[in-house]
Amino acid sequence: MAKVLTPRSESYSQWYNDLVIKADLAENSAVRGCMVIKPYGYAIWEKMQAELDRMFKDTGHENAYFPLFIPKSFFSKEAAHVEGFAKECAVVTHYRLMNDPNGDGVVVDPEAKLEEELIVRPTSETIIWNTYKNWIQSYRDLPIKCNQWANVVRWEMRTRLFLRTAEFLWQEGHTAHSTKQEAIEETETMINVYADFAEKFMGVPVIKGLKTASERFAGALETYTIEALMQDGKALQSGTSHFLGQNFAKAFDVKFANKEGKEDYVWATSWGVSTRLMGALIMAHSDDKGLVLPPKLAPYQVVIVPIYRKDEELEKIKVVAEDIKAKLRLRGIDVKFDFSDNRKPGWKFAEYELKGVPVRLGIGPRDLENGTVEVARRDNLTKEVVALDGIDNHIADLLEQIQANIYQKALGFRAESTCSVDSYDEFKKALDDKPGFIFAHWDGTEETEKRIKDETKATIRCIPLDQPDEEGVCMVTGKPSKKRVMFARSY
Amino acid sequence: MAKVLTPRSESYSQWYNDLVIKADLAENSAVRGCMVIKPYGYAIWEKMQAELDRMFKDTGHENAYFPLFIPKSFFSKEAAHVEGFAKECAVVTHYRLMNDPNGDGVVVDPEAKLEEELIVRPTSETIIWNTYKNWIQSYRDLPIKCNQWANVVRWEMRTRLFLRTAEFLWQEGHTAHSTKQEAIEETETMINVYADFAEKFMGVPVIKGLKTASERFAGALETYTIEALMQDGKALQSGTSHFLGQNFAKAFDVKFANKEGKEDYVWATSWGVSTRLMGALIMAHSDDKGLVLPPKLAPYQVVIVPIYRKDEELEKIKVVAEDIKAKLRLRGIDVKFDFSDNRKPGWKFAEYELKGVPVRLGIGPRDLENGTVEVARRDNLTKEVVALDGIDNHIADLLEQIQANIYQKALGFRAESTCSVDSYDEFKKALDDKPGFIFAHWDGTEETEKRIKDETKATIRCIPLDQPDEEGVCMVTGKPSKKRVMFARSY
Repeated sequence: MAKVLTPRSESYSQWYNDLVIKADLAENSAVRGCMVIKPYGYAIWEKMQAELDRMFKDTGHENAYFPLFIPKSFFSKEAAHVEGFAKECAVVTHYRLMNDPNGDGVVVDPEAKLEEELIVRPTSETIIWNTYKNWIQSYRDLPIKCNQWANVVRWEMRTRLFLRTAEFLWQEGHTAHSTKQEAIEETETMINVYADFAEKFMGVPVIKGLKTASERFAGALETYTIEALMQDGKALQSGTSHFLGQNFAKAFDVKFANKEGKEDYVWATSWGVSTRLMGALIMAHSDDKGLVLPPKLAPYQVVIVPIYRKDEELEKIKVVAEDIKAKLRLRGIDVKFDFSDNRKPGWKFAEYELKGVPVRLGIGPRDLENGTVEVARRDNLTKEVVALDGIDNHIADLLEQIQANIYQKALGFRAESTCSVDSYDEFKKALDDKPGFIFAHWDGTEETEKRIKDETKATIRCIPLDQPDEEGVCMVTGKPSKKRVMFARSY
Repeated sequence: MAKVLTPRSESYSQWYNDLVIKADLAENSAVRGCMVIKPYGYAIWEKMQAELDRMFKDTGHENAYFPLFIPKSFFSKEAAHVEGFAKECAVVTHYRLMNDPNGDGVVVDPEAKLEEELIVRPTSETIIWNTYKNWIQSYRDLPIKCNQWANVVRWEMRTRLFLRTAEFLWQEGHTAHSTKQEAIEETETMINVYADFAEKFMGVPVIKGLKTASERFAGALETYTIEALMQDGKALQSGTSHFLGQNFAKAFDVKFANKEGKEDYVWATSWGVSTRLMGALIMAHSDDKGLVLPPKLAPYQVVIVPIYRKDEELEKIKVVAEDIKAKLRLRGIDVKFDFSDNRKPGWKFAEYELKGVPVRLGIGPRDLENGTVEVARRDNLTKEVVALDGIDNHIADLLEQIQANIYQKALGFRAESTCSVDSYDEFKKALDDKPGFIFAHWDGTEETEKRIKDETKATIRCIPLDQPDEEGVCMVTGKPSKKRVMFARSY
């Protein structure tokens, strides 16, 4: 029996959970809020990592590794940061267990209490800037452009696989610069890298913009974000890049001598994306039959399923299948040939639809006679019979079409789900009738922002970078506004 | 002023510390026992990871990710494992901080105490087998062959960069099988993968063998090891592969129905290598001038240093250098062209010797006239003038020679530092006069093993797999022995 998902129309949230579990992407572990990323899910994450890592290196970054633990006192050094991060986190207080004197397993050894508690990193600005202090004396030591791939822990109360987990995997870039201008350029370069990755590899169109002051990273002067639209009309913040000014340099006393020999504090940025991107990828494209993966991030782009009754038919199919596999491999296309004999072709078809394999090839005895193969696309669920001759060209082209089509489909959905409104009533109606991105005028105050959030659960996702200036009045207060901002309900 | 290392003859241990710091490989962090892996050191680790990961995938393994935290009670489930691992470890007891009521930073919120403490994983057998329980019902679900790249924490009292740190990076493979034989074959396959990697990529010859019962992994029925010899005559255990029998399956109640429908416990293996390999790589080959890196793991194989007085000379050199760089790039050889103008060539020569770059090319005005380039090898510190024409072939060949030479040199050193002894006096003399690997007869008892360790600090590194049977008598007790085992002092 094939695995059936709850339809999106019935419960989008249950559909997502079903899909993550049934497509073997991830599952909850025995530790509250921590997930197990299963091999198929991890293979997608590895493809994301490989591409992002290449993009980071192409923009002049190097990888390094900083400690998992951060001394508690470090958090108190940057005033805004402590408010944002030093709250819900895992605290290490002891370093030894001992046999239970009552003979019942192991207990914490009360003698082994740490003098200062250690925090499992929720983000690494503090420990990294404490380290950079020793690396930086003069402008010659700048810029420093480090990235690390790491696990981080934020003790979230309500968790959802990939979208919000206590432990998650991410990369965090931390750069140090001699000028404000250079740091701002770095912040912008990286939000552009994230946007390129989302659009060209994930097939997910994003809106680039600035966060409002209340939504900024704790300790940042400016937070850039990319916002993606999910099929339920909610926004998903998919990557952020922070201009940190001199805040962390001041907190950790990191100064440098400039070319003129004058001392100044170092300018900083940080930027990150996480396994949350897996959630974005899943929710942006998939359907009631399962995952829809863009070819560039699929663990394998093509699966071959043999259709046969007799063993000698399978043997003949194998020859053809292995030949196709070898030809596609030469073009860098990964192929799985599933000739396992404990499942029927129909079961396999459903399974690979569930797993989002972009192209499925079916080969049966009639195909052998005719020199053909059945080619099924996952993105639009169409099928066609294609000549074996030149099949590698055909599939290479098809994968490009699929990659483009997935992006165009998401772009089309976003266009349909985006509107501009001028009154608060229109705004509320849009949120209920056709949720999505809503462009509206706002008076720029935290007060109004909070009122809208409290009353509608919609937040300002960003002040879009590409939005033209436009005179208007705030939809709530009627005060003047120079530019529309983008609202949505969000994950 | 170039950075000078303490010579090995003066203090091998200080030489190692100097080298790790001065070659920018790693440094101690603000957190006791935790290191910062700097970009140059991390780049070597990334090359190791990439190659190992390819080898794991070629042998049918998939990557996955399991939680950082393990519930305390899990450690008590496997009797031997708890003794070995549930002792010196980081214990998370709370999940929230709060503002200090006295206004002095943040303190642990006493209300936020976990019901059950969480241990930061020192190794993941317990959490993984608790997960596998849900993945395995029948023989059709087997084998499972997962690997994870992760950080682990063991609260070591005395730490040394790369060799022994509280937090370290590693990979841990965890496989599940339906038969004992298959699990043993997996254990052996992986120790062979590690040995191949050490010899072919790190250029470090290793002895494969079995650990004695007292040195086995906590919970294993058999531990396979690869042992490498460092230049000070000490052994470094460089990778281990464990046959775990059904111990973890029994502890976590993981059963499967075999083809006949009969229930049995699942058979297990685990295997790992860590950033400790960095220590082995550094100590096996390097000299008083700095690192010596095998080309296959060097972040860049070639550095080009221009030698010039006038800017127009540099411009001409740049043309030649960029041409060489492009040609080498086509062959997959990474080249750094260092035309920075704030350091003299002599300083650069010393710096790249310190960093172990396998080949250095010097290009000056005379080379431009003659169509030549000076080629310097890091491994044997020789130099030659070579025609520019065909330089790419020349360097590709040279890198292969260097890779082979580094290995041969280490192999020669090991041969010189290996002996067989028949009496305990000879044994002690060998340890003092010419430390290295010592092959001797042992009566097979833990008592004798312990006595030798207490009296000489030498341990049985392994019972070598390739050692022929040979009748003899234990050098200490005179009791019969059928095979020599390998002793050494070790890291």
